[in-house]
Amino acid sequence: MKNNSSVFFRLACLLLLVFIAFMFYRFQKKEKEESSESISIHNNAALSVIHSRKSVRNFVPGKLVSEEDIQKIVRAGMAAPSGRDLRPWEIIVINDRMAMDTLATQLPYAKMLETATLAIVVCGDTARSPLWVYDCSAVTQNILLAAEALGLGAVWTAAHPYEDRMSAVANAVGLPASVLPLAVIPVGYPNGDFEPKEKYDETKVHFNRWTTNAK
Amino acid sequence: MKNNSSVFFRLACLLLLVFIAFMFYRFQKKEKEESSESISIHNNAALSVIHSRKSVRNFVPGKLVSEEDIQKIVRAGMAAPSGRDLRPWEIIVINDRMAMDTLATQLPYAKMLETATLAIVVCGDTARSPLWVYDCSAVTQNILLAAEALGLGAVWTAAHPYEDRMSAVANAVGLPASVLPLAVIPVGYPNGDFEPKEKYDETKVHFNRWTTNAK
Repeated sequence: MKNNSSVFFRLACLLLLVFIAFMFYRFQKKEKEESSESISIHNNAALSVIHSRKSVRNFVPGKLVSEEDIQKIVRAGMAAPSGRDLRPWEIIVINDRMAMDTLATQLPYAKMLETATLAIVVCGDTARSPLWVYDCSAVTQNILLAAEALGLGAVWTAAHPYEDRMSAVANAVGLPASVLPLAVIPVGYPNGDFEPKEKYDETKVHFNRWTTNAK
Repeated sequence: MKNNSSVFFRLACLLLLVFIAFMFYRFQKKEKEESSESISIHNNAALSVIHSRKSVRNFVPGKLVSEEDIQKIVRAGMAAPSGRDLRPWEIIVINDRMAMDTLATQLPYAKMLETATLAIVVCGDTARSPLWVYDCSAVTQNILLAAEALGLGAVWTAAHPYEDRMSAVANAVGLPASVLPLAVIPVGYPNGDFEPKEKYDETKVHFNRWTTNAK
């Protein structure tokens, strides 16, 4: 009996040690995988948001964008580069239902403001920089990407260079004469499935010199 | 002896069970943390690349950008939105040392081409869309973000609307008349520490109506 118990004890210890070693190995491996993965996740998450961004034109009515997400969107916009670092942008955040409905009737290409619960108007102060159009386009792209990253949908509707659209926006929000609206961006939670388009076209890439490719 | 061994055996078993339970708990907890973290990493990685992007104007000489990264950069560029989905962009990839040095002497604001090992020229086909300036600005911003996401440095140097710079680029790469260069983007591995600027300015945010804030 004493012999049996001793053999059983040693066997049990051995098995448990093997099991512990295995668990420890799995745990270490997991940690290692995780740290190498976080680098590739970091890279891929930014690139994948760039590629998953799409124009969302229909939103879940009444589903509001949180104050926190509005902040993140606006901050992402202002992280854009600008010519000579003049930062000529001004951002109008519209979440007043009546204001959005009014704009929807006045802007023929921004009808999706009816279901959107937020609109970001990216404006440029023309007196502050002659390069405001480029800078504000970069702001707009950052905002579209931030919305995508936050699980929201958005779409770039042009105000500039269309005189009628620009004055509709200017009147609606009371812009001073030197400030022009570049884009009106309806934002909200996507209503339906919107898929990004594959737009890569190798005939549009030229190495070191212009090459005319069959299109 | 038999009694002692039996008590020891039971105690050892108990301790090992507790240890195993603890390891199992830690492992499960780790997995749980990881999955909830991956969502926030996904969001934050895109936003954090937007915020960590900065203008890099000095590069490690001779350190080449891989073909794979060049592909990723170009593809990110073409994932930009465009007015009426006309995609009027054309992208020139320059990595020929002599071509880059020639451009560096001709473009007063693109001297950093001397240390850059890659230049991306974002062009627009003016015959294809009247909105090419906005579209190509979004392409440029995507490219700057992709470079940041890949651990590279880049900077937007303007070609459009400056006639002299546009013709210098057009001559260097042989652009047809309808294709205008918007931006020349030197790319490479950052040489030195470049910090993003904090550009958020709450006086530039207006809620529902324009408000004139003290600047």
